[in-house]
Amino acid sequence: MTPPAGADGRDRPGEFEIIGDIFAPLAAGAPGAWGLKDDAALFHPTSGFETVLTVDAMVAGVHFLPDDPPESIAKKLLRVNLSDLAAKGAVPRGYLLVTSFPADIDTGWIRRFAEGLAADQARYGVTLWGGDTVKTPGPLTLSLTAIGEVPEGRIVRRGGAQAGDDLYVTGTLGDAALGLAVLKNEIAGLDAAHAAFLAGRYREPEPRTTFGQRLPGIAHAALDVSDGLMADLGHLCSASGLGAQVEFHRLPVSEAGRAALELHPELSDLVASGGDDYEILFAVPPGRAGLADAAAAESGVRIARIGTLLPAGKGVTAVDEAGREIPLKRLGYRHF
Amino acid sequence: MTPPAGADGRDRPGEFEIIGDIFAPLAAGAPGAWGLKDDAALFHPTSGFETVLTVDAMVAGVHFLPDDPPESIAKKLLRVNLSDLAAKGAVPRGYLLVTSFPADIDTGWIRRFAEGLAADQARYGVTLWGGDTVKTPGPLTLSLTAIGEVPEGRIVRRGGAQAGDDLYVTGTLGDAALGLAVLKNEIAGLDAAHAAFLAGRYREPEPRTTFGQRLPGIAHAALDVSDGLMADLGHLCSASGLGAQVEFHRLPVSEAGRAALELHPELSDLVASGGDDYEILFAVPPGRAGLADAAAAESGVRIARIGTLLPAGKGVTAVDEAGREIPLKRLGYRHF
Repeated sequence: MTPPAGADGRDRPGEFEIIGDIFAPLAAGAPGAWGLKDDAALFHPTSGFETVLTVDAMVAGVHFLPDDPPESIAKKLLRVNLSDLAAKGAVPRGYLLVTSFPADIDTGWIRRFAEGLAADQARYGVTLWGGDTVKTPGPLTLSLTAIGEVPEGRIVRRGGAQAGDDLYVTGTLGDAALGLAVLKNEIAGLDAAHAAFLAGRYREPEPRTTFGQRLPGIAHAALDVSDGLMADLGHLCSASGLGAQVEFHRLPVSEAGRAALELHPELSDLVASGGDDYEILFAVPPGRAGLADAAAAESGVRIARIGTLLPAGKGVTAVDEAGREIPLKRLGYRHF
Repeated sequence: MTPPAGADGRDRPGEFEIIGDIFAPLAAGAPGAWGLKDDAALFHPTSGFETVLTVDAMVAGVHFLPDDPPESIAKKLLRVNLSDLAAKGAVPRGYLLVTSFPADIDTGWIRRFAEGLAADQARYGVTLWGGDTVKTPGPLTLSLTAIGEVPEGRIVRRGGAQAGDDLYVTGTLGDAALGLAVLKNEIAGLDAAHAAFLAGRYREPEPRTTFGQRLPGIAHAALDVSDGLMADLGHLCSASGLGAQVEFHRLPVSEAGRAALELHPELSDLVASGGDDYEILFAVPPGRAGLADAAAAESGVRIARIGTLLPAGKGVTAVDEAGREIPLKRLGYRHF
């Protein structure tokens, strides 16, 4: 690839400066990254494991707010990918990073971005293996390929759920969508701690890495909630050839989420329709409920049983506490 | 990731239509891609092999011409990555694709882009394993992660060359840079066949995949020529802790390249400085010259001996046929 023009001043680093000075330290713990000084990275697969690969892209103004802190943007980029690995039961190993920087980005921004990655590398046990850095006349555009491993034959798919399985979800739902509303000043009167919690859930989702690794042998099927609970449940049901019934009152809502919804009850459908929560939705046969609870306790993650998988003919429905059906349209459900 | 807004008309496909209708057929031959319908791809590593990973990004107007044919853009995106794998001695297996499409892109463009990928999948024996498709308010931005395999312990690095090794390069040099000049109407009077050949070398470089797989056991070091011969030789020398002398008159130039340089002798430095050729530059101990020639013959690739690796103190120099030193500045050499 033809390198972009070199540095045009103190604060406008060139490709080689960005890679050599700022990103190379992130590769220090990865022997096969060779300090980002070769054409490619080498990975020695663990015997008895298969490799799981995923990639997600984020564009400024589309997938994050342009004035989000660079550390948070970096963490979100890494975490949305780690979330995909977690939902498949994989242990994260490393990642490749592609950055398309606008010409006016400065060294300080890139250093803070790298600091966010460094913090998460320590937190999740991954290292930078390689990547590419280019310039763009457009908005900041990022993509990240995450590489993980799962014991042979043990990956957890979207398909594979069975009628009668219980539906579970980790953590709490709706926080990220409410956090985005907070950041857009659309929620008035919320106390500062709750507002900060929700904004944090939008900016820095928590991939369920440790819990996810325990899913093989417990869950028949799983995926992460990125498009919204009902939409992602639709994906799981479609891949498994099943229907499902969700008990709306069982959907787990955080204390901050509850506070926001008390102020703005009209936003309550965000619990079922809001995206970007990056919790894991999974199907467990009733006989394994104890295993699921134990895995959650060992991982320090809360899980909630929110419904049941049904035969295909039953479709996807939601009911309230009294067993009355809730119109799906109200819950942001779309058929794909 | 929150999906972008759905299709807004017949020719503006949504994310799910692009993935399901246009890209999913490219994943048909990859069992671990699951029709692009899961969160991640599964790869079963070949026993006795290590995994080689590389990623390159391309931005419209920066790395390709916005009016380049979509098939060519797709092929270049895949091939620049396959070239990195080839230079490491790896067999390509599959790839992940990230597309950031401007809102005004139409279905026909994306279908032609996918047709280019389909043609190259058959040519190079790779399949699409996964990816991400997003919308961007900026220019078309693409990135591709290529995954290959190399027998354990046999990867060919940039470092590892030894003083006394002969320097070789595959194919011909300068074609891509001359082709770009042709496409920009900067070369007048060239006959149509030569112009088409050079433009084709810029738009659709030829990764030396088959030859590259024979490099382990022959080359001490290798990399692909993407930044220009002298720049990439600088990388190889730096990584190997060596100097080098290039014999300028030995640099291989195509018939079309020769015709262009006869019309525009002032462009002759492009042979040594022009990027985007994606040939392989490699270092071979003299005793293995016969092996290198045999590997080239078996692969149907031309190779040329263009110089020699020297001890570090000697620096990187170029000489003409009479042994006179050529100022490096004239050859586009930059220190990184």
